[in-house]
Amino acid sequence: MRKIEIVQGILDANEATAAGNRAVFDQHRCLAANIMSAPGAGKTSFILRTIERLSPHIRIGVIEGDVVSTVDAEKVGDIVSAVVQINTKGMPESCALVADMIHAALKRLPLDNLDLVLIENVGNLLCPAEFDLGEHLKVVITSTPEGDDKPLKYPVIFAQADVVVINKSDLLPYVDFDIDKFTRAVRNLNPRAVFFPLSCKTGSGVDEWVAWLRSQQPVK
Amino acid sequence: MRKIEIVQGILDANEATAAGNRAVFDQHRCLAANIMSAPGAGKTSFILRTIERLSPHIRIGVIEGDVVSTVDAEKVGDIVSAVVQINTKGMPESCALVADMIHAALKRLPLDNLDLVLIENVGNLLCPAEFDLGEHLKVVITSTPEGDDKPLKYPVIFAQADVVVINKSDLLPYVDFDIDKFTRAVRNLNPRAVFFPLSCKTGSGVDEWVAWLRSQQPVK
Repeated sequence: MRKIEIVQGILDANEATAAGNRAVFDQHRCLAANIMSAPGAGKTSFILRTIERLSPHIRIGVIEGDVVSTVDAEKVGDIVSAVVQINTKGMPESCALVADMIHAALKRLPLDNLDLVLIENVGNLLCPAEFDLGEHLKVVITSTPEGDDKPLKYPVIFAQADVVVINKSDLLPYVDFDIDKFTRAVRNLNPRAVFFPLSCKTGSGVDEWVAWLRSQQPVK
Repeated sequence: MRKIEIVQGILDANEATAAGNRAVFDQHRCLAANIMSAPGAGKTSFILRTIERLSPHIRIGVIEGDVVSTVDAEKVGDIVSAVVQINTKGMPESCALVADMIHAALKRLPLDNLDLVLIENVGNLLCPAEFDLGEHLKVVITSTPEGDDKPLKYPVIFAQADVVVINKSDLLPYVDFDIDKFTRAVRNLNPRAVFFPLSCKTGSGVDEWVAWLRSQQPVK
């Protein structure tokens, strides 16, 4: 019982910190997106493609979450200056970003000069669903080689998604992935999610996502 | 502090239960393999291919771990009779199997009549690395579309692996995955792992894995 009480306490504290983060984003009229997926579904490539299309009209900051390593932050740092790396190893929740980590990262971002903050969560379809970060948009990326049954197996994260990206559409001819079956499975959990099938490799479909993201941007 | 002490207590208790599970497997001269990967890397297909090649000479039981759903247990149940489903939702650790869950599952398996138990862990490259289940072999599956940088980002699980399976080798012509780079990255963490590149879709490379697995089987 003691452990369960403590876990509940942690989640309540996280909600409060997340609300504070959201207030900071709103005060700066800065849109924040929390990007989540399984390992290797293409979160970093998706962020790189998004920056390529929106910069410099939209000024973008990135928060990179990883258990260890700075591989992704280095890739992103090549094309955008405002990047903060968070390594979760040794932290009480190492399998996901939590609101406290974002709170600390926000102090290191020039929010007055940013329109959009992209947060790359730890590669995991389970733990990140537990923690609100104070973002405006939850973006869940699935990739076609993972198979179309993921919503059945990881329903919580798909139920929360504002946006579902179906990445690696260029591999559709070579894998067993039925987009209609996948979309129906997400719809059963979540009637409001917006879908973007795309390929970060070829760039196909990225324009549609970027146009939609621009439509969500608050007027500065 | 209190939370960290409790977490340490849970891990110590898990070690003790895992040792008990291992003793039960040994007593029945039953080999146990813990199969771990990211979501969608092909754990279930790998188990199905392994059963196809080894049955009925090797008598196989399967423990299926999922947060929710019985999708995988149903697929496996079509070709093997001894299947136990574990759903981790609502359990204190829902993002991985823990030794207690295996202890309970072993009571429902006919161990006297089994040579091999395949344990399909929850799809996750982080949490399952924390919990010994009492298995003899830790098998980590990576799939080529995930990219070759996964050992840098999820080093703990690759450092522990006895076997590293590189699945979806049929997709190599279409994805950026350098087998040498991947193998070197694992070798840096783990000099003793055995590698099996294979495709559960085409069956290529499965014979090598199955021959090796047979060589690990205790004499009954």
